[in-house]
Amino acid sequence: MSGKRRLGVGLIGTGFMGKAHALGFTIAARVFDLPFELDLVTVADVTAESAETARARLGFRKATTDWRDLLTDPDIDIIDITTPNLLHKEMALAAIAHGKHVYCEKPLAPTVADCAEMVAAAEKAGLVTQVGFNYLKNPLIFLAKDIIDSGEIGEIRSFRGVHAEDFMADSTIPWAWRLDPRSGGGALADIGSHIIACMRHLVGPIRSVLAETVIHIPERPVSRGAAETRAVEVDDIARAFVRFENGASGSFEANWIATGRKMQHDFEIYGSKGSIVFTQERLNEIKVYHAGDDIRSRGFRTIWAGPEHPPYGAFCVAPGHQIGFNDLKAIEVHEFLEAIAKGGKPSTDFREGYEVQKVLSATYRSARNNEWVEIG
Amino acid sequence: MSGKRRLGVGLIGTGFMGKAHALGFTIAARVFDLPFELDLVTVADVTAESAETARARLGFRKATTDWRDLLTDPDIDIIDITTPNLLHKEMALAAIAHGKHVYCEKPLAPTVADCAEMVAAAEKAGLVTQVGFNYLKNPLIFLAKDIIDSGEIGEIRSFRGVHAEDFMADSTIPWAWRLDPRSGGGALADIGSHIIACMRHLVGPIRSVLAETVIHIPERPVSRGAAETRAVEVDDIARAFVRFENGASGSFEANWIATGRKMQHDFEIYGSKGSIVFTQERLNEIKVYHAGDDIRSRGFRTIWAGPEHPPYGAFCVAPGHQIGFNDLKAIEVHEFLEAIAKGGKPSTDFREGYEVQKVLSATYRSARNNEWVEIG
Amino acid sequence: MSGKRRLGVGLIGTGFMGKAHALGFTIAARVFDLPFELDLVTVADVTAESAETARARLGFRKATTDWRDLLTDPDIDIIDITTPNLLHKEMALAAIAHGKHVYCEKPLAPTVADCAEMVAAAEKAGLVTQVGFNYLKNPLIFLAKDIIDSGEIGEIRSFRGVHAEDFMADSTIPWAWRLDPRSGGGALADIGSHIIACMRHLVGPIRSVLAETVIHIPERPVSRGAAETRAVEVDDIARAFVRFENGASGSFEANWIATGRKMQHDFEIYGSKGSIVFTQERLNEIKVYHAGDDIRSRGFRTIWAGPEHPPYGAFCVAPGHQIGFNDLKAIEVHEFLEAIAKGGKPSTDFREGYEVQKVLSATYRSARNNEWVEIG
Amino acid sequence: MSGKRRLGVGLIGTGFMGKAHALGFTIAARVFDLPFELDLVTVADVTAESAETARARLGFRKATTDWRDLLTDPDIDIIDITTPNLLHKEMALAAIAHGKHVYCEKPLAPTVADCAEMVAAAEKAGLVTQVGFNYLKNPLIFLAKDIIDSGEIGEIRSFRGVHAEDFMADSTIPWAWRLDPRSGGGALADIGSHIIACMRHLVGPIRSVLAETVIHIPERPVSRGAAETRAVEVDDIARAFVRFENGASGSFEANWIATGRKMQHDFEIYGSKGSIVFTQERLNEIKVYHAGDDIRSRGFRTIWAGPEHPPYGAFCVAPGHQIGFNDLKAIEVHEFLEAIAKGGKPSTDFREGYEVQKVLSATYRSARNNEWVEIG
Repeated sequence: MSGKRRLGVGLIGTGFMGKAHALGFTIAARVFDLPFELDLVTVADVTAESAETARARLGFRKATTDWRDLLTDPDIDIIDITTPNLLHKEMALAAIAHGKHVYCEKPLAPTVADCAEMVAAAEKAGLVTQVGFNYLKNPLIFLAKDIIDSGEIGEIRSFRGVHAEDFMADSTIPWAWRLDPRSGGGALADIGSHIIACMRHLVGPIRSVLAETVIHIPERPVSRGAAETRAVEVDDIARAFVRFENGASGSFEANWIATGRKMQHDFEIYGSKGSIVFTQERLNEIKVYHAGDDIRSRGFRTIWAGPEHPPYGAFCVAPGHQIGFNDLKAIEVHEFLEAIAKGGKPSTDFREGYEVQKVLSATYRSARNNEWVEIG
Repeated sequence: MSGKRRLGVGLIGTGFMGKAHALGFTIAARVFDLPFELDLVTVADVTAESAETARARLGFRKATTDWRDLLTDPDIDIIDITTPNLLHKEMALAAIAHGKHVYCEKPLAPTVADCAEMVAAAEKAGLVTQVGFNYLKNPLIFLAKDIIDSGEIGEIRSFRGVHAEDFMADSTIPWAWRLDPRSGGGALADIGSHIIACMRHLVGPIRSVLAETVIHIPERPVSRGAAETRAVEVDDIARAFVRFENGASGSFEANWIATGRKMQHDFEIYGSKGSIVFTQERLNEIKVYHAGDDIRSRGFRTIWAGPEHPPYGAFCVAPGHQIGFNDLKAIEVHEFLEAIAKGGKPSTDFREGYEVQKVLSATYRSARNNEWVEIG
Repeated sequence: MSGKRRLGVGLIGTGFMGKAHALGFTIAARVFDLPFELDLVTVADVTAESAETARARLGFRKATTDWRDLLTDPDIDIIDITTPNLLHKEMALAAIAHGKHVYCEKPLAPTVADCAEMVAAAEKAGLVTQVGFNYLKNPLIFLAKDIIDSGEIGEIRSFRGVHAEDFMADSTIPWAWRLDPRSGGGALADIGSHIIACMRHLVGPIRSVLAETVIHIPERPVSRGAAETRAVEVDDIARAFVRFENGASGSFEANWIATGRKMQHDFEIYGSKGSIVFTQERLNEIKVYHAGDDIRSRGFRTIWAGPEHPPYGAFCVAPGHQIGFNDLKAIEVHEFLEAIAKGGKPSTDFREGYEVQKVLSATYRSARNNEWVEIG
Repeated sequence: MSGKRRLGVGLIGTGFMGKAHALGFTIAARVFDLPFELDLVTVADVTAESAETARARLGFRKATTDWRDLLTDPDIDIIDITTPNLLHKEMALAAIAHGKHVYCEKPLAPTVADCAEMVAAAEKAGLVTQVGFNYLKNPLIFLAKDIIDSGEIGEIRSFRGVHAEDFMADSTIPWAWRLDPRSGGGALADIGSHIIACMRHLVGPIRSVLAETVIHIPERPVSRGAAETRAVEVDDIARAFVRFENGASGSFEANWIATGRKMQHDFEIYGSKGSIVFTQERLNEIKVYHAGDDIRSRGFRTIWAGPEHPPYGAFCVAPGHQIGFNDLKAIEVHEFLEAIAKGGKPSTDFREGYEVQKVLSATYRSARNNEWVEIG
């Protein structure tokens, strides 16, 4: 035995993100010197079959169709929520009420009020929380933050970001839950929260936004191939101007109909002494410019992730070998578990999820009247 | 003798753009089968010395310090204006009044009213005009336009563009004419007009804009190294949301403090069936995506300019050899001269310069109150 | 219980590759529908402490300092060898003698004779073997092979490949086991075997090679910082011309002193109707050119890995999210286990390792006299 | 008048290169402060019509069908030879005999003996010569040379270069003069000379080569569409290992059947303290790596050409605007004229063309027996 304290995990949801989280736990246990002995206790899903299949595949001990079973299981210390957005609040509050730490996919909840309630409950209970802003858990994003915080590229003046994919670009894709306005919105709520989280993480708190949203595919088939259509009420594209509290200005776009783009989570950050350019399309590279380099040989440096960029070295001792998406989840898990062990807070805890939601909500509010909206 | 009709050129201004125009004429005469025998008659500049130096270097016959000398010279058919923005109108109107065709650097004039007056005069006089939106004169931009116009990438849904450089990023750069508000503005007026022209050229007329402008370096030394400073009143960065008449939406940014950027005139155009991505940093390449390509081997195609992209072949019979900035000017000249010969209109004539100025002006107007402004 | 048959794994070695293999098993079990229930039984390492640390971290049940313990353990079905090159043969032969399937890091063994002995033993015993040519286990390399095999890019004419890193570029790096000639060589044996395996995999069997090797750092400190030096007898760089049995020609280079390169495992394959270009520096992208595309819009297509490139979808249902190095190991494990279940042969079994070693050995032989050497 | 001494130019040949040279003279006169007043006197071509067309287009005063007319024209100081390879020697010797400086396209002549004769004649006559190795006349290649010569990237250890295009990749392209063995060879002679010149320019003199050549398209139609074919006797691909006099090692490839490649004149140079990577596909960019940069933020710097890289500034005062292929010719012309004015030698004079031819010839000699051949 390792002598480490055991920590039990209960997972709700076994789709794209449920699987990614399970992998995150599994990989984290192999690559990091975790403060706990992880015990993957129970996985919950809607049907007995899917729950059991996931259990066997993802390495859990038990399966259930009732997520509430996890609440009362004394073996479970962490509840991990990967269900659709609309269900996060009820599950998180219940978990907190039962004294469980909570790991929840983004966005935290459809409304700011919901998020606030979740933050209040978690903080009152003194529990550790984590939201799945996985793109921030990249060794090179840690490097970017270090470079910015160190003043190496001077005062930050401007930010330009985008999160664009094309999974909704084909107008024959049928209406589905992603298009349900009760989820909190469309492209912005679904994928735009990532770029908002990125802005806050790297440049800092946002003071105000001025936004617009656009629907380019106003109706979609009710089901694949159906002639009958249903109106689309949520944004295909959202765009915003941003003012940061530190005086920097910027803009971002969320777009799920960007034909050809699979993972364009890109940003450019310009400071008075340098700049940083990144695309998630090449997550193991980042470009950094130093205005102070010798003029004739200065240029953006393409930096490949290596052991000199923690925690890359946990995955591979050699540089340039590259980590993948699921590895970002392992880093996210690691940060969460370290916070539990040390009584700290992950950089993307529920409060941060709430802050992101405030910006997201302000963006939608701004888009209604195209007016600047202060982040409360 | 070639038997071609002679066409005399008078050039006003011998700075960066004056030289580029002179090269444009010279190169055009060598690579294209021009409809005229070009005669570089007179160059005008502020001092006798600079005018004479330019004359000798740029291959003109005569030099003068009085640009009005060009107006009455019967040998001169074209007046080419490369002086600061504020002087364009007076010179162009005088040229038109004397029956000269006019080639003028962008932006056409600081105000829409000025531009309108210039357009009216030129059109009434039946003269041919050309504005220096050189980035559009790229064989690969012609290709982009063909691809869009052919419907190959479907209905255009969104545009994202930027024109960013860093020539004003250093806060010790002193106050200068570029910062004079009478020029019509800052980054947007100076370099943003290029991206506005690009949007209009590729996606079509713009219906409305919602903009903001920001000053990040609020004061600058009155001269290099001076302790005394002068307030900056024009935009370092301008950002706008755009609605096109065809229903597409988009955004653009103009930024002259983007540390590390030398020529980031970039755009991404997303259609229902494909997309196009371009950066002026690599002007001999363009990326095109076809959603209809076989799914397992589809991706952005990186197309290098070659003879299959007219008029590249005029410069080089072999693909991949690359054209440069001054060659774009030669293509601009060629289009102008063809229009004169055939009684046509260049795609970037004064009327187009006026349309660009309307968008530019609307953008500034919008930025004052952050309201949508319709393009009149 | 899953009802699947259990399969026990014994791992020898817990360094860079030991850990990567352990991760490969763990990840494979989570993302693939494996034909077995994996049981990570025992890990063997040199010291009790390192073995126990690895056991706890990597998820094995038992630890030992005597790798021979694994041979007689009836719970163990697979022996996984990640020790230095020189030890592979003894361990593999022992494993085979005890009826274990064998998974072994590359290169298989220092000499062709050693490899032949290993192949003969494994084939006679009817056991399944796998060699760690992990770069081939990339969904986009599978795509490349499909494209080539389908004839889509025509008859293959030429290949240009390189495997370059810089981990030996600093001349103060001390002498170490990698420099021991008994390991079978230097850069070529250590990293060049990857590019040889790649050539064979994609273009086919190699008929002959003409090679040279070079030592650029003729001596190194006996230990870090030592004044005393030891002569280097193995290649820093190896280069070869290659003739394939199908008539294609090519070249490759192995280089471990390529300053700045971290993972330049690159190749370009030119066919009569198209071409393929790849760099491991961007392992989730491949570039494919079709000469038959419309001339004005043809160019290398940059294809990002997605679910349309099996088995990418096992890791992530969404395209563009990217897999990492350890995921390649999971694919390698999956192929191995499928072969065990179905009685098949992995594409990179011991026989393939032997074929690669024949080319590697012929390359060294050729380099001695710079003569063409036929692959026996 | 400029007061500068007049220098008369006579051009022989008006094809791809004839036009490029004419543009080179014209552009050079506009962008550089040339030491002479250029006078484009006479252009010679095979037919009266082509000569006259070229004269009018390229800006010469006179046209002729007899190149010998140029020899005796006292107005002509420079004879510029852009005819097929086989004709260079006769023309150059005649020009030299008449006291003309000679500008000649590469390769200088089909044999080393021919080249030697040309060098001897030129040097004896004290005339200035220039060979068209235009890719070296790039501001960023000058930068590369400066960086190497300064020791900034340490001792140079290895070089990897290629010059690949695809203009012969289609097997239906008919037999033509390029395939005539009397021209001195195939891909190597035609385009490989560029990469040899590049190696010598940047890394230094070459001591020996070990080469192979391959014919992949053994016969071609005698004319477009013809059923009758003619055997191809010259190399489609040539490959060589190289040893430099300074101890560096390297390799290069010349390939004119590299499907999809239009201008892959690429090289990578690895030193003990850094490296340089370049592709002519992006001639306005170069990548430089400094091993001594801070470890966590070191990477290849992508440097865009700007005024800090002379003579870029002659073409454009602003960085990032880019120069094109014809501009390289203007720089070549400038270097030639400066040498004439100052009694110097261009870096790519006939002697350098002869040195390149020695390497080229040694490469072919080596390829015959696949033996190392010392460069005499």
